[in-house]
Amino acid sequence: MVKKYKKESEVSYALGATVTMELLNKRAELARAVYVSPRSDIAAVNARAAELGVPVVVGDKAFNILADKDNCFVIGEFDKFTYEIASGNNHIVLVNPSNSGNLGTIMRAVAAFDCCDLAIITPSSDPFDPKTVRASMGAVFDIRFEMFDGFDAYMNKYGRNREIVPFMLNGTPLAQKTFSGDKKYALVFGNEATGLPDEFIRYGGVRIEQSDKVDSLNLSVAASIALYKLKTSC
Amino acid sequence: MVKKYKKESEVSYALGATVTMELLNKRAELARAVYVSPRSDIAAVNARAAELGVPVVVGDKAFNILADKDNCFVIGEFDKFTYEIASGNNHIVLVNPSNSGNLGTIMRAVAAFDCCDLAIITPSSDPFDPKTVRASMGAVFDIRFEMFDGFDAYMNKYGRNREIVPFMLNGTPLAQKTFSGDKKYALVFGNEATGLPDEFIRYGGVRIEQSDKVDSLNLSVAASIALYKLKTSC
Repeated sequence: MVKKYKKESEVSYALGATVTMELLNKRAELARAVYVSPRSDIAAVNARAAELGVPVVVGDKAFNILADKDNCFVIGEFDKFTYEIASGNNHIVLVNPSNSGNLGTIMRAVAAFDCCDLAIITPSSDPFDPKTVRASMGAVFDIRFEMFDGFDAYMNKYGRNREIVPFMLNGTPLAQKTFSGDKKYALVFGNEATGLPDEFIRYGGVRIEQSDKVDSLNLSVAASIALYKLKTSC
Repeated sequence: MVKKYKKESEVSYALGATVTMELLNKRAELARAVYVSPRSDIAAVNARAAELGVPVVVGDKAFNILADKDNCFVIGEFDKFTYEIASGNNHIVLVNPSNSGNLGTIMRAVAAFDCCDLAIITPSSDPFDPKTVRASMGAVFDIRFEMFDGFDAYMNKYGRNREIVPFMLNGTPLAQKTFSGDKKYALVFGNEATGLPDEFIRYGGVRIEQSDKVDSLNLSVAASIALYKLKTSC
């Protein structure tokens, strides 16, 4: 029985054929059902679901409840899951991200550059919101991420022997920052509207060089530039 | 009389106080009216509009028609405009971008890195769609952009003495690409779903290094990484 998604729901939904295929190919054990619109027949999804033993439900109902766009013809229902990040990896830490599109787009960049695990400091956007899952293009099924009640909780678990690199408008230029493959980093980004609290400057802030024509960059753009720099430096 | 926005409309709308302030501060001559919700009183916007002689209309009506979010309390109505890009500048060329959020986010990055004008090859998202304007955070009022019927039309007008740099998944790594302040570039990006047609490879394609965990990067992320690289190289 499909219901409108809520943060408390046990399940969430992958909207669209591409994201549903990522679910089936990467985390089939989480898939509960695949809903297929009678207006469309995406044979590859049906075949893959059948192969994996995931029930396929044909009908419009799920789409009326879950999809607000006309171009969604496949929905994958999946169990939420928890994951730990790896202490031996670099991390990107998002402090209170509040836009699910940004969070999903950053997940996609994390998978693309494959040099960091993702830490999310709550309160934050919901990583399982269908909008996040959609913006991630399925990367949510393919990266390690972990939620923390506060930055201190992250530091207590993973801060040891790690250089903390907060991105702040009053930091030093990113072009001057060097990264070494011998060290482990945490790239830290604040909330879309407020950035990081001033106290983070004690770790030594880094700034992505930008003109005074804007107040700041979009969060997913800023995070992706930092990930790309780390990826190509190490 | 406020109407739901259409591509054919003569006017468009800046949703939110931040974007409306950008309109008033950067392109006041375009501003027709400012709508203010009675649920809110953003004194700075009222004061600036009064100073500029832009009529302020208090009431809920404009918000019911134009804003689907509860957190929008100010709307600026403005005349659409046309602009030419500069032949002496670097350009970023978007071929058939189809997502207004991406287009606006790229406008914001163009303003932030301030090293390129923006060329848009149609069919494309509408640069004046309120969703684009909103995602641009007002950068639409602060950058040069120009629309072209096809890539050939762009090349005929601005291609001379310019290195064309198409971003393609089968190109050479961006880290190996050097940019010189003595040359003029066109960074070229394809549509979100389809990328650039294969024929662009004759210009010599460049690829942003990425893992096989994803099919591609988000368009605004890819374009912003390229802009940042150009900005910090020249």
